[in-house]
Amino acid sequence: MDISAPRPATAQEALALRYGADAIPAAGPWNDHIALLLSHRSVRGYRPDALPKGTLETLVAAAQSAATSSNLQTWSVVAVHDPAARAAMAKAAGNQKHIEQCPLFLVWCADVSRNARLGQEEGAELPTLPYLETFLVAAIDAALAAQNAVVAAESLGLSTVYIGALRNDPALVTELLGLPPGVMGVFGLCVGYAAPGVTSEVKPRLAQPAVLFHDRYDAAGEPALRAAYDAKMAEFSRRNEMAATSWSQRVIARMGKLTAMGGRDKLADVLRALGFPLR
Amino acid sequence: MDISAPRPATAQEALALRYGADAIPAAGPWNDHIALLLSHRSVRGYRPDALPKGTLETLVAAAQSAATSSNLQTWSVVAVHDPAARAAMAKAAGNQKHIEQCPLFLVWCADVSRNARLGQEEGAELPTLPYLETFLVAAIDAALAAQNAVVAAESLGLSTVYIGALRNDPALVTELLGLPPGVMGVFGLCVGYAAPGVTSEVKPRLAQPAVLFHDRYDAAGEPALRAAYDAKMAEFSRRNEMAATSWSQRVIARMGKLTAMGGRDKLADVLRALGFPLR
Repeated sequence: MDISAPRPATAQEALALRYGADAIPAAGPWNDHIALLLSHRSVRGYRPDALPKGTLETLVAAAQSAATSSNLQTWSVVAVHDPAARAAMAKAAGNQKHIEQCPLFLVWCADVSRNARLGQEEGAELPTLPYLETFLVAAIDAALAAQNAVVAAESLGLSTVYIGALRNDPALVTELLGLPPGVMGVFGLCVGYAAPGVTSEVKPRLAQPAVLFHDRYDAAGEPALRAAYDAKMAEFSRRNEMAATSWSQRVIARMGKLTAMGGRDKLADVLRALGFPLR
Repeated sequence: MDISAPRPATAQEALALRYGADAIPAAGPWNDHIALLLSHRSVRGYRPDALPKGTLETLVAAAQSAATSSNLQTWSVVAVHDPAARAAMAKAAGNQKHIEQCPLFLVWCADVSRNARLGQEEGAELPTLPYLETFLVAAIDAALAAQNAVVAAESLGLSTVYIGALRNDPALVTELLGLPPGVMGVFGLCVGYAAPGVTSEVKPRLAQPAVLFHDRYDAAGEPALRAAYDAKMAEFSRRNEMAATSWSQRVIARMGKLTAMGGRDKLADVLRALGFPLR
């Protein structure tokens, strides 16, 4: 399916793409907004075409409209235009060329420095700043904001992909973008028009009973659900990536060796150096 | 403005509600999806009315359609129906009655236990599990998922509010929901129809130049932007909460004393006890 293909006309079709025809959840309400959300795919190849004027500002308005814990607004976003900075980040992120290629590359930051400056300027001590909780609030708020930007971008016919590998070397990102202490680039986001030939199917997910529970966590059905999903993902990867790898194989490849973390096993120490004591 | 009021007809109106008429960002593309995102307000009072059949499943389908790092799907969600469990969580969250009141209460969990079980069952060691990075991926993925559920809910005319105070006592949440090691309730989410009389205006945010940077972080304009926003928030709180408190005053009230953390200053130790070594 081409990324520019129209979205499935019905809930059943959209849910079948996401879960497989045998694992469609109970029928519920549906509308164009939900169809848009269901149609998400990450895209890793972009045309160089510039975005319409004001797109960045619209995406950021969507992002700032997301909830933020106690309205603390502990995040910032940096649009990276400089080709040299992009190239350096692409390299650090394991040679992800789309970071250089996409017309808009955003670095979403956990940012408690604004609040810290406020405290300094007002002569107020803010003893909560050094806590893990405060970093976590900032990272979660950045994620809520970024996801709203993703939804807005996709509603405009744009494609996106998150770049978690920006955490391979957060100190480099800090240096490149001049981030003050108390700011950390949590992830990147490529935004642009999908390149021709970069097709991407909706990726199936685990069936709902594997992730949704009622009152009590219950993994009793998990082995059967995982086996069914393994078969689906092997089929998906055969169609799209020419190697029939199951989900279990992929999880083991990703989580089964520290080298697969690309340096992110050092994140706790790096964060402390960047002004997040994680107390 | 009543929560059930129609959304502003134009981008300019919606942006003026979010930023104030003097701080509207550059005009950009616009559509109904973006208007929906801009119209978000958190709502803290709900009618008891049940949701249409299948609403939960639709919200979870939207949630699962969000990006997830390397498709690891390190999150779960628990729908809490049991009134006693809800009452206990409401109390621990500083007596937030809407947790008991809303027709749907969801606990979004960072969950690496599914991957851990997979490794055990397949006889594969997963040495990446104990790292801070892995917890952070799980928390961010839970946030991306939840935000999609929020957008889906609001598209259906429902209201929501995130409950960060679920982290006041994560061990209690673990006990109430029977969460295994490697699972942590990161935040709650109330979903339902706004109660009559629970009006809520779109809350203004910092002007874009305070949070959006180009190539380099630059806080030079921040004091003026903060002063302008302080005035806007004092006006907003006077209209909505009958106490004209500026943003700076609120940040200091929230971040200026450890007691305002409601126990979340212990989060690092609590997470370690729940199976996240945060290495």
